[in-house]
Amino acid sequence: MQAGFAMLTAGAARSQNKSNIIMLTTVVDAAVCAIFYYFFGFACAYGRPWNGFVGKHNFGGWMNFAQFAEYDDEYPSARPGQGNPWNPLGNHRVWVFEWASAAAVAAIASGAMAERSQVTAHIASSAFLSGFVYPVICHWVWEPHGWLSVYSQGKRVMGVGMLDIAGSGTIHLTGAIAGFWGALILGPRLGFSRSKSGYGGYGGASSRGRGHGRSSTLVVLGTLLLWLGWYGIYPGSILGIVPRHYTAMKGVVNRAAITTTLAGAASAIATFFVRRWLTGSWKVEDACGGLVGGLVAASAGCAVIEPSAGMLLGVIAALVLIAVKRLAKAVGLDDPMEALQRHGACGLVGLLFVGVFATEDYVMQMFGDDELPDETPCGWLYGKRGRKLLAAQAIGAACIVGWTSVAMAPLFLLLRIAGLLRISREEEAARFGDRDSDLVLGDES
Amino acid sequence: MQAGFAMLTAGAARSQNKSNIIMLTTVVDAAVCAIFYYFFGFACAYGRPWNGFVGKHNFGGWMNFAQFAEYDDEYPSARPGQGNPWNPLGNHRVWVFEWASAAAVAAIASGAMAERSQVTAHIASSAFLSGFVYPVICHWVWEPHGWLSVYSQGKRVMGVGMLDIAGSGTIHLTGAIAGFWGALILGPRLGFSRSKSGYGGYGGASSRGRGHGRSSTLVVLGTLLLWLGWYGIYPGSILGIVPRHYTAMKGVVNRAAITTTLAGAASAIATFFVRRWLTGSWKVEDACGGLVGGLVAASAGCAVIEPSAGMLLGVIAALVLIAVKRLAKAVGLDDPMEALQRHGACGLVGLLFVGVFATEDYVMQMFGDDELPDETPCGWLYGKRGRKLLAAQAIGAACIVGWTSVAMAPLFLLLRIAGLLRISREEEAARFGDRDSDLVLGDES
Amino acid sequence: MQAGFAMLTAGAARSQNKSNIIMLTTVVDAAVCAIFYYFFGFACAYGRPWNGFVGKHNFGGWMNFAQFAEYDDEYPSARPGQGNPWNPLGNHRVWVFEWASAAAVAAIASGAMAERSQVTAHIASSAFLSGFVYPVICHWVWEPHGWLSVYSQGKRVMGVGMLDIAGSGTIHLTGAIAGFWGALILGPRLGFSRSKSGYGGYGGASSRGRGHGRSSTLVVLGTLLLWLGWYGIYPGSILGIVPRHYTAMKGVVNRAAITTTLAGAASAIATFFVRRWLTGSWKVEDACGGLVGGLVAASAGCAVIEPSAGMLLGVIAALVLIAVKRLAKAVGLDDPMEALQRHGACGLVGLLFVGVFATEDYVMQMFGDDELPDETPCGWLYGKRGRKLLAAQAIGAACIVGWTSVAMAPLFLLLRIAGLLRISREEEAARFGDRDSDLVLGDES
Repeated sequence: MQAGFAMLTAGAARSQNKSNIIMLTTVVDAAVCAIFYYFFGFACAYGRPWNGFVGKHNFGGWMNFAQFAEYDDEYPSARPGQGNPWNPLGNHRVWVFEWASAAAVAAIASGAMAERSQVTAHIASSAFLSGFVYPVICHWVWEPHGWLSVYSQGKRVMGVGMLDIAGSGTIHLTGAIAGFWGALILGPRLGFSRSKSGYGGYGGASSRGRGHGRSSTLVVLGTLLLWLGWYGIYPGSILGIVPRHYTAMKGVVNRAAITTTLAGAASAIATFFVRRWLTGSWKVEDACGGLVGGLVAASAGCAVIEPSAGMLLGVIAALVLIAVKRLAKAVGLDDPMEALQRHGACGLVGLLFVGVFATEDYVMQMFGDDELPDETPCGWLYGKRGRKLLAAQAIGAACIVGWTSVAMAPLFLLLRIAGLLRISREEEAARFGDRDSDLVLGDES
Repeated sequence: MQAGFAMLTAGAARSQNKSNIIMLTTVVDAAVCAIFYYFFGFACAYGRPWNGFVGKHNFGGWMNFAQFAEYDDEYPSARPGQGNPWNPLGNHRVWVFEWASAAAVAAIASGAMAERSQVTAHIASSAFLSGFVYPVICHWVWEPHGWLSVYSQGKRVMGVGMLDIAGSGTIHLTGAIAGFWGALILGPRLGFSRSKSGYGGYGGASSRGRGHGRSSTLVVLGTLLLWLGWYGIYPGSILGIVPRHYTAMKGVVNRAAITTTLAGAASAIATFFVRRWLTGSWKVEDACGGLVGGLVAASAGCAVIEPSAGMLLGVIAALVLIAVKRLAKAVGLDDPMEALQRHGACGLVGLLFVGVFATEDYVMQMFGDDELPDETPCGWLYGKRGRKLLAAQAIGAACIVGWTSVAMAPLFLLLRIAGLLRISREEEAARFGDRDSDLVLGDES
Repeated sequence: MQAGFAMLTAGAARSQNKSNIIMLTTVVDAAVCAIFYYFFGFACAYGRPWNGFVGKHNFGGWMNFAQFAEYDDEYPSARPGQGNPWNPLGNHRVWVFEWASAAAVAAIASGAMAERSQVTAHIASSAFLSGFVYPVICHWVWEPHGWLSVYSQGKRVMGVGMLDIAGSGTIHLTGAIAGFWGALILGPRLGFSRSKSGYGGYGGASSRGRGHGRSSTLVVLGTLLLWLGWYGIYPGSILGIVPRHYTAMKGVVNRAAITTTLAGAASAIATFFVRRWLTGSWKVEDACGGLVGGLVAASAGCAVIEPSAGMLLGVIAALVLIAVKRLAKAVGLDDPMEALQRHGACGLVGLLFVGVFATEDYVMQMFGDDELPDETPCGWLYGKRGRKLLAAQAIGAACIVGWTSVAMAPLFLLLRIAGLLRISREEEAARFGDRDSDLVLGDES
């Protein structure tokens, strides 16, 4: 299980391999996230007592894990606190998973800022994201007492709460918005211009690739590792945690795996063909980008929508991805890893899609019959009351975007004012022409 | 479990990294396979009712997975349908595994056609293989009512049926034969000639490598990921699925893992040393190729032969591999990934080896005492009636070769006639000299 | 589980990717280890009867695994023989894990000898390490009747025995010492000099990287795969093996995962910042090296120290790592993979740290209340009798260093005398300037 979660990190990190400059951030970011998530993040997300907005206790890892160990089998939980909100070991057990998720958020944000930001900026952004910003969103959505949770007693948003099973919103949208503000405040890379086709459009992969001639290999390797990691996120977590007798859960895991696969595959193929039609050439990067977009979109609802709906979702995500790519190019946003396009836009699509296509049966299988306070949410397609769920999804997405913006934009502005955000023009210029640039990131000659 | 299976795909795909041109196919192929396997393949393989040749129902993923979820623990099954042929969840659960297997077949076939085929040809071949050709073979061998299955009541082939536990025949031989016809009908790559030593012999790795100087790294990375993935195929699947009380199964899994390891290791070492003796130099590609060959050969019988027999098998596979390599070079077959040599010849060796070295005890442990209709199969070495098993293995291998040839050769001929099979001479020539060739595959300038 | 262990091998192998010359050794070494560990190693480590020093029976894999299969669930064991020393299936089950550990030892040693040693030397060293030297140490520490084991009845070293849960000593220290003697007897690579800054200091990565310009990518990829693999070593093994009702173990696994993560992260960050302060530039290799050092140090005590102590351990490991790096540079030891620095020094730190920071509660949870013969060991910090544990750890470390030196140094000397150790000056010189050097390792023109 842990292996699957760590693989997610490895995969996410790997997909950014394309531009060597940010190699550094993948290892250092993950390490920074581990420390900050341990000291602050976990407490903010799942510490007790809580107040619906943020956990207020158990900071610094001072949760007495050991004493609760015996209750483990009696009150297992798929997500921290789910199933049995009072089981701290559920929390404890998935610490590695939660850390991997936090590191994924930081990696998505770092990707958008690649090739022109200082090491300090990466560390500050990762620490703040994993120590505070992301955990607060976790608390809202995944902690049973969070104000957006489907488990919130009585006072759920729109009466149903928000469904985000594997993090289309909490993980991907959060990371993308943070990265968006970072990229915006950093400004584009040297030599980046809107008119220069193929530069803003294809991201660091192709732009750097021209110099190195080996990016395709790494893009595909990164994408495949990431794809592999995806199977660890949701199915892996449930399979390892759900009690044996709760057999329905296994059907849930299977469906989640199938739906995720089909959404990713449909999105990859759609992106591949539509981009062929638009650009006139087959590009493996298009298929890879589309695949990631489809997987992101499928995260929110993987276990509560039909597999065939997953395919539809993949196609929608592909079209949105292509449209947002064009838009970003037109606007001149320089985001080497396409965080906003792949993780932001597709994450949003995934969240809203759940509001339309979630089936009541599947939601019940996923969350249990008797644990949800009152009515079981379902998508609009399956009944008029589904509009409530769609509204809740939209409200949740808006709150994630708003909170992340309010928290991260000032941080990047502060870093910019302090001169800690961007590397010097000389360094950046030198780096692009230099084959050894990937070895040394500092002020060495 | 899913992670292991997906890793197999990643690994298989990765090992083809050497020639960048086919990078594209690994992602797109896997996506195409997911869609086609979902709509057609799964139904052909395990849809009900069936007729021994092909499943006739449950097309388009319209199997009602959810309603059967409760029966999961009561009727688990290692392979789809094994143990309890009527348990659809067994099928459902391993959908991701089955898809990964189908994608592996397509990846093996694509490898043989690398560097000179059109994207269209790859997509058509992958779709047909994963949607129809491979599932039919699955149905024969792994579906309890398939005409080659060991479970077929009363009318088993030669009275025993065919043993192919992890797909030496169903997966590797199928992919290799499909790739063989593709490579034959495509014709060799530009500049490929029989006399030019080191070109036809070592495949795309070294030939492309000359230009790029980095293939060894990727070959080893691909091989190690593939080796890793192998532990997900058989042991992973059984460990995750077999019921707790069925403890003998664990011994089976362990033995399978040991046998697979020893066969691969013996084959790697044998290939490494014999090639050293033949060519005068140590080549890491030889060890990697031999390792893959040994693992392929061990797939058929990993759980039913002695670990020490696995070592013998590895050595035999290595010698056959080297001989077939020479033969392919002499004949002038240009198969960049050596699909026919590694997956075809070694797969065949593995199938026949089971007919000689399978022990009755191990077969009984693997398939259960009371579930096999009448006598338990065993290898020739362990009794005269073992000849029946050997005959069944040979018949099965011949049918797989025949069916794949009959199905795939016309497809490739049709594609050739339609002008969709091979890229233009100009494009191919340009690609070999161009460092950016891996970025753009189409008609871009 | 097997996947995790194999991943460890893949990861360990991968991290050596940086210098292509030793690519070969990763695949061939692992294969050689499989054969020798099967025939000799396993028997030396866990064969019965034993005498505390080395197992004396069950050579050649002639342990009748199958007949014991039924006892599997009744007497499970985390480590071979632990829990129930007489359960051979516990042994059998983890054969793949044990082989992966043996291969890791061989890979660590091979890394130190990279770029200048003959294939023969690698094979001989791997065979001897995996077939005899490492298994003997396993027998001492992990076999319940081994003379260093905490389970030894009555006559435990210092009355407590040695604690080395995941191999800081048995795996990493052993490999590092073997590699140290190999590197010493081989002598430095051509062109290596003490004064040439950046050569001896940063190892093969940066030295070779200058020529290839792509090492950072592979270093990070290797490190991430290795990090991922680490989660397979300890947590994976326990999770998969411990009986369901033994719920406390799960808390143990969780704590081990958290402690390992924090130690690695703290070490990566500390190395990164201290090296920045010392060298004036941010280097991703520093973070990666520090991460590996922290993980190595955490192996010994991952489940018996507090997670916050793990962070302290990480910082100490980082400082020791940097100091030993300087020392090695000053002394002129040419160890391309920094085996002695990362695996040796940090492994030793980890062993001693346990002697100070192990808590009695955690040790009891780990090893069981009623299975330890008399008093439960704990660290010095938690009581004066902890000095005994610290002494036992030091004695254990000294014995590992001594035994490995006594066994391996003569082997390398013999190889040197026989002219089988080092490649010719011409070959080595040619290799460094040649881009194709990674393809051919022998005497080919």
